[in-house]
Amino acid sequence: MIIRDFNKIKGTEREVADARWKSARMLLADDGMGFSFHITTIEAGSEHTFHYKHHFEAVWCVSGEGSIEDLATGEVHEITPGVMYALNLHDHHTLRAKTELQLACCFNPPVTGTEVHREDGSYAPAEDDKAA
Amino acid sequence: MIIRDFNKIKGTEREVADARWKSARMLLADDGMGFSFHITTIEAGSEHTFHYKHHFEAVWCVSGEGSIEDLATGEVHEITPGVMYALNLHDHHTLRAKTELQLACCFNPPVTGTEVHREDGSYAPAEDDKAA
Repeated sequence: MIIRDFNKIKGTEREVADARWKSARMLLADDGMGFSFHITTIEAGSEHTFHYKHHFEAVWCVSGEGSIEDLATGEVHEITPGVMYALNLHDHHTLRAKTELQLACCFNPPVTGTEVHREDGSYAPAEDDKAA
Repeated sequence: MIIRDFNKIKGTEREVADARWKSARMLLADDGMGFSFHITTIEAGSEHTFHYKHHFEAVWCVSGEGSIEDLATGEVHEITPGVMYALNLHDHHTLRAKTELQLACCFNPPVTGTEVHREDGSYAPAEDDKAA
């Protein structure tokens, strides 16, 4: 059994930060669960375009308000506490935070922890990441 | 892209209830994400013994207070908002809710939605469930 506390991970090396977002890695690939689990904080007023071509991601809004735009269709969905979006089609999307968003995120395949977003908004597939 | 709102799922057939717990199925096997994702509510004062012999489960506490006991070791871990437990060893465990617990849960392999807890606290493996 693995026990980890988000409140103790915040601000440590298990919390990865990039431009106006940070993500506490609660579970990574080497935990052997077959998925990774993250608590991600998106800064109020920021926007982020991602395209996880090699991963499925589900995101559940714990707190805050924002929106997600499906860049294939132009459709915009409001994000409020309790709303989940799942990128079952590896959807290219823009996430906008009206207020600070706290999000619980699950990735399959699991993130290894060393990925960075590439220019196209994707993470490399796990094999490329291992080879890098 | 799948969008679902916990606040709209509550009380519908996507929310499964059993003795003193209920679980809103945000994502199930047929969503094709490779994991399932649930928002589970555990009634204050209740206790539950589970043993997912065929699944990995990670559980992140959104709100409430309780504890988890590892029945193999007798160790007890406090559960408060922000704490995650991950059953990476298919750990036999007892979950106790001091106050109502709201939990974000992720299962691999994904739950199909038709499982019931068996006498031994497990869910059947997906193959058995399909065959049933």
